[in-house]
Amino acid sequence: MTSLPDPAEFTLEEKVSLTSGASFWYTEAIERVGIPSIMLTDGPHGVRKQRAGADHLGIGDSEPATCFPPAVALGCSWDPVLVERIGAALGAEAAARDVAVLLGPGVNIKRTPLCGRTFEYFSEDPVVSGVLGAAMVAGIQSRGVGASLKHFAANNQETDRMRVSADIDPRPLREIYLRAFAHVVREARPWTVMCSYNRINGVYTAQDRWLLTTVLREQWGFDGVVVSDWGAADDRPASLAAGLDLAMPGPTRAGDAAILAAVETGTVDAQRVDEAAARVLQLIERTDRRSAEPVDTDAHHALAREAAGRSIVLLRNDGDLLPLRPDTSVAVIGAFAAEPRYQGGGSSRINPTRLDNALDEIRRLANATVTYHPGDPRDDAVAAAAAADVAVVFLGLPEAAESEGYDRDDIDLPAEQLALLDAVLAANPRTVVVLSNGGVVALPFAEEVPALLEGWLLGQAGGGALADVLFGVVNPSAKLTETIPLRLQDTPAYLDFPGEHGHVRYGEGLFVGYRWYDARDLDVAFPFGHGLSYTTFDYRDASAIVDDAGDLTVEVSVTNTGAVAGREIVQVYTGLRDSAVARAPRECKAFASVPLEPGETRRVRVTIRREDLAYWDIRVDGWVVENGTYTVDVAASSRDVRASLRVDVAGDDVSLPLTRMSSIGEVMAHPVAGPALAGAMASAMPDGGGSAGIMPEGVDIARMLEGIPIGRAGVFAAAAGAEVDPAMIDALLGTAERPAD
Amino acid sequence: MTSLPDPAEFTLEEKVSLTSGASFWYTEAIERVGIPSIMLTDGPHGVRKQRAGADHLGIGDSEPATCFPPAVALGCSWDPVLVERIGAALGAEAAARDVAVLLGPGVNIKRTPLCGRTFEYFSEDPVVSGVLGAAMVAGIQSRGVGASLKHFAANNQETDRMRVSADIDPRPLREIYLRAFAHVVREARPWTVMCSYNRINGVYTAQDRWLLTTVLREQWGFDGVVVSDWGAADDRPASLAAGLDLAMPGPTRAGDAAILAAVETGTVDAQRVDEAAARVLQLIERTDRRSAEPVDTDAHHALAREAAGRSIVLLRNDGDLLPLRPDTSVAVIGAFAAEPRYQGGGSSRINPTRLDNALDEIRRLANATVTYHPGDPRDDAVAAAAAADVAVVFLGLPEAAESEGYDRDDIDLPAEQLALLDAVLAANPRTVVVLSNGGVVALPFAEEVPALLEGWLLGQAGGGALADVLFGVVNPSAKLTETIPLRLQDTPAYLDFPGEHGHVRYGEGLFVGYRWYDARDLDVAFPFGHGLSYTTFDYRDASAIVDDAGDLTVEVSVTNTGAVAGREIVQVYTGLRDSAVARAPRECKAFASVPLEPGETRRVRVTIRREDLAYWDIRVDGWVVENGTYTVDVAASSRDVRASLRVDVAGDDVSLPLTRMSSIGEVMAHPVAGPALAGAMASAMPDGGGSAGIMPEGVDIARMLEGIPIGRAGVFAAAAGAEVDPAMIDALLGTAERPAD
Repeated sequence: MTSLPDPAEFTLEEKVSLTSGASFWYTEAIERVGIPSIMLTDGPHGVRKQRAGADHLGIGDSEPATCFPPAVALGCSWDPVLVERIGAALGAEAAARDVAVLLGPGVNIKRTPLCGRTFEYFSEDPVVSGVLGAAMVAGIQSRGVGASLKHFAANNQETDRMRVSADIDPRPLREIYLRAFAHVVREARPWTVMCSYNRINGVYTAQDRWLLTTVLREQWGFDGVVVSDWGAADDRPASLAAGLDLAMPGPTRAGDAAILAAVETGTVDAQRVDEAAARVLQLIERTDRRSAEPVDTDAHHALAREAAGRSIVLLRNDGDLLPLRPDTSVAVIGAFAAEPRYQGGGSSRINPTRLDNALDEIRRLANATVTYHPGDPRDDAVAAAAAADVAVVFLGLPEAAESEGYDRDDIDLPAEQLALLDAVLAANPRTVVVLSNGGVVALPFAEEVPALLEGWLLGQAGGGALADVLFGVVNPSAKLTETIPLRLQDTPAYLDFPGEHGHVRYGEGLFVGYRWYDARDLDVAFPFGHGLSYTTFDYRDASAIVDDAGDLTVEVSVTNTGAVAGREIVQVYTGLRDSAVARAPRECKAFASVPLEPGETRRVRVTIRREDLAYWDIRVDGWVVENGTYTVDVAASSRDVRASLRVDVAGDDVSLPLTRMSSIGEVMAHPVAGPALAGAMASAMPDGGGSAGIMPEGVDIARMLEGIPIGRAGVFAAAAGAEVDPAMIDALLGTAERPAD
Repeated sequence: MTSLPDPAEFTLEEKVSLTSGASFWYTEAIERVGIPSIMLTDGPHGVRKQRAGADHLGIGDSEPATCFPPAVALGCSWDPVLVERIGAALGAEAAARDVAVLLGPGVNIKRTPLCGRTFEYFSEDPVVSGVLGAAMVAGIQSRGVGASLKHFAANNQETDRMRVSADIDPRPLREIYLRAFAHVVREARPWTVMCSYNRINGVYTAQDRWLLTTVLREQWGFDGVVVSDWGAADDRPASLAAGLDLAMPGPTRAGDAAILAAVETGTVDAQRVDEAAARVLQLIERTDRRSAEPVDTDAHHALAREAAGRSIVLLRNDGDLLPLRPDTSVAVIGAFAAEPRYQGGGSSRINPTRLDNALDEIRRLANATVTYHPGDPRDDAVAAAAAADVAVVFLGLPEAAESEGYDRDDIDLPAEQLALLDAVLAANPRTVVVLSNGGVVALPFAEEVPALLEGWLLGQAGGGALADVLFGVVNPSAKLTETIPLRLQDTPAYLDFPGEHGHVRYGEGLFVGYRWYDARDLDVAFPFGHGLSYTTFDYRDASAIVDDAGDLTVEVSVTNTGAVAGREIVQVYTGLRDSAVARAPRECKAFASVPLEPGETRRVRVTIRREDLAYWDIRVDGWVVENGTYTVDVAASSRDVRASLRVDVAGDDVSLPLTRMSSIGEVMAHPVAGPALAGAMASAMPDGGGSAGIMPEGVDIARMLEGIPIGRAGVFAAAAGAEVDPAMIDALLGTAERPAD
């Protein structure tokens, strides 16, 4: 197919038919005019394509595909180049299987570690999520396969996910929960966006015109197809009117009929049908260009291993216990060493082409005795630990603990694992812990274990990557994209997750993840952005310059001061201490992943666009850059700031009209009305406000008055024994309408 | 005046004139028909009546009146009998001065210690606030003077108080912020309620029909006058329509004219004018019965001293350093000893009839050397401390730190005071600290100082009361009605106070005060309900019984096991661990103040009404008692539980209709539809849900399915390779409409 027919040639029924699926995974074809059906399928870190004709054999029976590291791990690479390569591989696998749209990436924010699907998301930070999500989209689409940016939006939990209303104030909604989506839409132009199941502030996203049209299309310029999450579009006419183009799955004859009826009665504009059909056609056209070359399964497995190696976070390495020398005898303990946990449950679950395990890979790299004990007979495992130079204990969450469809109740590792670890540690303090988990877990042993690797869920080649890191074949470079808290009780959403009776209040507001721990000055187990290396890095000569356009260029020289090659993730955070609005002490704005040979120095440069400094101003319903001296922290983690700079930023002008409800403080700040009011007050209140009686000595009268609406000045002047002529107020407000000299 | 004329005899203009003030403090008279003008005046802990003819001499120039302990202190008595006596004294003083309505009490919740006006409020807990507020109203009105319950509602800060919208979800609004008002209205029937300045969820309370009419009158049965806070009723017709009866202050001719115009155009119903005028008339009639007997100033001063003695909280008394023996030589340090801080700034500020100071009173009770140093020359103070048996250091907040009109920025004592204390402690570890403050302060020295008295603001006789407690003339019995946190960063509203751009989100929801610290398991300096005595109390034989009406009777035997007479405040908290909704671990539901001679035992009995166990259910927009086994903690403080009981409570029936958006879990729970669905699912999904592929092993499939809306069962069945007949769903929902057998 080289070019598609003009939709003007279609009947209304044909156009409507394009706006929903033909079956579970396919769009409708229109054979009369040569429009083919295309396939959309899961998921973010692998292609889950059901076997042909398997519609009734169960959703899980899918063709083998490479299981790359899920986003929880891959995100810790902080490397859009790597993520784009994974995306391209995913696109190639999809194309090879005749899949037109891959349902990913997911850029929802990790609001709480309890979310059952947190392993599918990149970060608690919207900039990290946005940059990596955009890279993933670019990679997938580079192979002619459409990405589907999901789950739009504010789908941050599984509990009651199909009904719950995420009740979020405008600032956190814009600054945290929509920000990553906005970035991906603008930078990577995904061909589809998938709406979520939940409601936002009471409105189903599948029926939210504000979200799907005003924000997504008009404000962000999205030009692709909005597809429903599977089953989310119950009310087809309402969804179509709101801006949903493609309701999946199908067939949904009743829904098509409802749209036809709605067009007839005028409830839905026929133009919306044309628009949606044209977009679906455009999608079909775009994805038609994919070239279905055969997949090199070995090369993709190698890429999965490389990516997994870049995803493992070295949390702790006391006394340089790691890397292990090949002649170190090792007691491997814990079943995850032999039977890896490498992905989560639900629609993202891949039937892998191969599956490495860490035990085999450790045996391949070791030149000394390697024993293995799953850990059930604890005494044997402890004896093995005592007999070995080093014990490597694999801990993690049981498979059933983490899946789409439900959330966790706690962040604890199973008690028997903790008891096993205690026993091993007592027998051999030279113990390395390797974690396998899709959501963060409490680490009560963090101070007692000399070496600790956060392995997350690493995909099918994670076993090899873990061995690579343990033996120093790969120098770990990943850093946390989410905080590891000390206790569940410390987490921001603890008291209002998962909500009740259909509503979940995002009471923590802007203060998600590290923003919360920093603002409340709480200790954490490991901070956002933290990750160690087998080498060390030195930061020097940091600088920050604002250019004429208001963009910020931040530079720093980073040197590998150790003996082995490594990679450092440099992070840049901004803050504005004396802001007129609530702000986190530090917000991640840019980062760079920098490979460095021993002794090598590189000048790292990142740009923070002026607009990235803006906050969402509810007074004007728009982004506003505030005037002030911003801090720019160049950091190795959110709590390891290597250089703190200051830059002056000229803010946007937000001039609001003065009214009778403008406060005296606001009038005083006005260039014309301010001096006029000051004069009037001085003559009306000769004693400075009549405060001698009721106001304490030493009080700042101006501070007390500044909150009083100017229209009520008369009342409070009367209380202080003065009089205000109402005409004076009107005159004053009149002067404010004239521009300042 | 024995009876007032029928309002039917008035002209519309006359009726309208009654709905606003004639002047700053007086209502309009209608001389033609013999309606007098009455006076309303501040405030909660004293009568602040401006001198006759002083309208233009400044608000602070008021007639002398007894300054009783402000609510921050008096509340710590937890004693409605005492509070009612204070109320009666206030009523008597008002009556003697021809004041018809006293503008108090204030029962706003202490949401944050930073609130500048927190000293005017009783507690962070709504039950404590409500019980004590009702007692105060009963006392005032027992003298024929009207009380004015204020500030209705959710006026929990001073910053931007005249405009800010308190954005609060339904449950915290009902369960925390309105609860005390509801209690006072129902139990004490105040003759007036004062609306606040702020907005709630975007609506000015002065124009909030839901608040002033639906909730206050229709739901709570309020039959008095709703009066505006001074200047709050900008839009008179809107306020009148919403349910405001009396706009203060006056004169407001323009407002009257606006109402007349609105009645003419039909925007405001003439009946609302009749109603408001009739209520103002009723108020005039009610208050006309007050008998203006002369005030016994000495007796009121003695009462103020008694109340202050009952308000001082002994936070710590290591090694029984207190009470001091008369022959103990004392170094009194700190200016507050001689120049007391005894009230806050703003409209509640009283011109006292007398003013005691602690230094004089200590000298009166001591039989040994008493030295005094204000503390400015630190070396002298330290030398005096070293030379004395005991140092008594007075610390506190500067007067200008606490007032109506603005909030605090921190909870710190001045650094120079902390430095002085450190020096004194080093010189003499036998140091007693006495605090003077209207809002809680951080106590970094709490573990280092052996004895610590929280003196709050104690009114004009506080100096004597402090001496009484120091020397054991009065055995302290007060307990905290608010938590003293370790740090400002730990306080619940820390991140969203005071809001921005006209909105403050109550993001902590229900978790205000101790509810927050308990739910997040945070350490505090001193917990809610804490307070020591010079004697000790033993709790035995606690019991809790539910009667046929569902009310709970809780009993416990309390024994004074020490050598001196004392008074114990017994607190009862409830909880429901497995609630379907978020709940605080413990909620105070009842309390009793019990005087006990040495060795005496009393059986204490309190009642918790069934309705007090209810939570606000947003599904039905009403109070619902949940079924379950409640914990009933009989406690000496919120963190000193002496007996934890369990009672089974039969819940209210909340049957909601099943719809296509009802979840499978909800359908399963239905007595008729549940079994039908279970059967249908078993035959439709022979493999138990087709989970083998995408769901992890060991997962609870039922849990995963229970969140899926029944109307979408078809989609998810298809995913699992099964089919659902849509007619079956409709049939199933149909069965649910029939009652269970």
